[in-house]
Amino acid sequence: MEGEPTLRLRIFNLNCWAIRYLSKRRQQRVRLIGDTLRQEGFDLVLLQEVWSEQDYSELKVKLAGSYPFSHYFRSGVIGSGLCVFSRFPILDTLLYQYSLNGYPYMLQHGDWFCGKSVGLGLDGFAGIRAPLLSPSLQLHAEYCRDKDAYLPHRLVQAWELAQFIRHTSKAADVVLLGGDLNMHPEDVGIRLLRGWTGLQDAFAEAMHFEGCKNGCTLVPDNCFTDKSELLPFPLGIRIDYILYKAISSFTVKCEELKTTTGRAPGMDIPFSDHEAVMATLHIQRQGQPAGATLGTADPALADVVTEARAEVGAGLRAARRQRYSSGRMAVLALLLLLLQAAAALATLAGLGAEQPFPKLSFCLLAFLALGALVLAAGLHLFHTMEVKMLHGTEDQMWMVLRALQERP
Amino acid sequence: MEGEPTLRLRIFNLNCWAIRYLSKRRQQRVRLIGDTLRQEGFDLVLLQEVWSEQDYSELKVKLAGSYPFSHYFRSGVIGSGLCVFSRFPILDTLLYQYSLNGYPYMLQHGDWFCGKSVGLGLDGFAGIRAPLLSPSLQLHAEYCRDKDAYLPHRLVQAWELAQFIRHTSKAADVVLLGGDLNMHPEDVGIRLLRGWTGLQDAFAEAMHFEGCKNGCTLVPDNCFTDKSELLPFPLGIRIDYILYKAISSFTVKCEELKTTTGRAPGMDIPFSDHEAVMATLHIQRQGQPAGATLGTADPALADVVTEARAEVGAGLRAARRQRYSSGRMAVLALLLLLLQAAAALATLAGLGAEQPFPKLSFCLLAFLALGALVLAAGLHLFHTMEVKMLHGTEDQMWMVLRALQERP
Repeated sequence: MEGEPTLRLRIFNLNCWAIRYLSKRRQQRVRLIGDTLRQEGFDLVLLQEVWSEQDYSELKVKLAGSYPFSHYFRSGVIGSGLCVFSRFPILDTLLYQYSLNGYPYMLQHGDWFCGKSVGLGLDGFAGIRAPLLSPSLQLHAEYCRDKDAYLPHRLVQAWELAQFIRHTSKAADVVLLGGDLNMHPEDVGIRLLRGWTGLQDAFAEAMHFEGCKNGCTLVPDNCFTDKSELLPFPLGIRIDYILYKAISSFTVKCEELKTTTGRAPGMDIPFSDHEAVMATLHIQRQGQPAGATLGTADPALADVVTEARAEVGAGLRAARRQRYSSGRMAVLALLLLLLQAAAALATLAGLGAEQPFPKLSFCLLAFLALGALVLAAGLHLFHTMEVKMLHGTEDQMWMVLRALQERP
Repeated sequence: MEGEPTLRLRIFNLNCWAIRYLSKRRQQRVRLIGDTLRQEGFDLVLLQEVWSEQDYSELKVKLAGSYPFSHYFRSGVIGSGLCVFSRFPILDTLLYQYSLNGYPYMLQHGDWFCGKSVGLGLDGFAGIRAPLLSPSLQLHAEYCRDKDAYLPHRLVQAWELAQFIRHTSKAADVVLLGGDLNMHPEDVGIRLLRGWTGLQDAFAEAMHFEGCKNGCTLVPDNCFTDKSELLPFPLGIRIDYILYKAISSFTVKCEELKTTTGRAPGMDIPFSDHEAVMATLHIQRQGQPAGATLGTADPALADVVTEARAEVGAGLRAARRQRYSSGRMAVLALLLLLLQAAAALATLAGLGAEQPFPKLSFCLLAFLALGALVLAAGLHLFHTMEVKMLHGTEDQMWMVLRALQERP
């Protein structure tokens, strides 16, 4: 069916690093991003880390002419930071918040407050009757590769993302996913996501590539990147992706993939501390269904799920230990408070009246015990939730493994 | 195509009210539920409020013969309380947690801690090639009908549930939903859910009905119901539902609907404080697609969405007020602490040394100010999230309204 029209779709993906008061030269960069997007006229723009709704509103006003449709996904305390601009109508949206997203007490990492999530926009593209699914997402950041306490959380997120894609894209023609996944291409989370959804990596499939070596999106040439983070990777790392997949009677090919190279084209500063990823896809209708199902029959998939499940299991054991120790601390703090109450009552009853009662230190100790109790109880609550979610994911993975093994 | 085989599907739905240490005669009732389910041999059993995983495990062991497939959905601090038992394979599961679920500080209501959610199980039924979707859910409880502070939260949940069903069931043949929705049949949340998904109410459609008058599931005859809750409704209320819909080339008919009537059949105690709902559905394949789309073309739908959006808007304004007042309280507490620090420094510097420094009251005041600061900051954080989610829902509803109005 060579006669069917081909849709040429140009996609722009960028982690904008636009945190109010914290990101360097944010306003200048957001203006630059807006100007570039207006000039370049992409079809679909997926932005992450647009934390300020004001930045989104400014972009929306500036881009109203070239991208008449847009959506900002609201969640968490700060927001999801996700937004989509599109030349084609966004017909419907859905936000899925990951069940695990770091620890609220790790204030310096801040992930918990962002409500990281995957935003699903249903686009109706010209010439193609069926909807196009375009989630954009950001998984939990990796702060230390060697001792990565967040790995189980990131795997739960990768799993939930894969499940979400599988369940929501059954009637779609094409699935598009763009975002900062915070994982290297060979990491178990990426292998799990790709294996379980069958998504293809635009970088690996591109007929023509132009940009940073190996498609890296965090590079030392970028003046905003944290150089210490890149010490083990002198060439940079690739953590921003555009993934795609044809589901029904369509084929998708990646004609070209580009990344920026440490600065915005023709400017002296970069868009962000991440490089932008730009893909040109060819979407064509075929005479008969392409036959691609959502679950790939890759025999290596069972190994990947087994590997991921082992990591989640390790995280589960750690979470159980933390739940136990925070529970013990809460009980100890409660005992101390009860002891103090008994001592105070004894003093009131006139026992030990010959000695002066040390009011101030008593008060301070009670203060300390109460603080410890509240803190430990909160931690216990949090780790209880963590155990539930890790356990639930382990269960789901087991169910999938069983199904994979039963398959001929 | 009269020759196509008909699947007769018997469904059991019950809010089990099985809270450890709190629910009356829990163990006896769970045993009774298990025995009945084993004897009756339903095809699909949807249970809510099975808060203890041990109860689930006991049921699972007891029901292994008649219901070889089961799943327990884990979430929140206590769990989701949702579980499914099935005679047909459960192929895959997905849990969606509502973004808003009451207030963590309303300890007596407890909803926040349960992580209320919708569980999605994909069932493969005999004779029907395509998967069957069976979410079970429980929406936020209604504690006071006249002054219902939770109404916006419940509407956000109803909306998210409807959106979740629309997005996940596009390739399904039949959608089944069973659960305690905590809403009366004529409430705006139910009208929104049914209007936006096109789900049909088994009670309204049943060819034969047997049970409590008007299909009520919280009735005064049940010895465990809270009689004060039912004072305005002497006949009882209907808040537990079985809803269904055929999507592709299938038709679904409800042959029979039954409820228990204040006690378990042949016993002197009820299964729970809710009545069980039992439906017998006929699912038949048709020659050609039934043509039912997920969005119904009901002209009243726009009115329902408008009504719901107004309620969510009222909730949004209330949440903004609460965010503002908790923020102001936090600032005041911080000012008090700073003032105290200044006073302490002044004393240390020797100012006002002629008067004795009131150490104890100073300490107590600092304690109070710190407590108020932590509390107010926590509330501020929470209401900020609430504002984001209500605002996001309002936006989504607006998008849908625009699309509904543009439709011919």
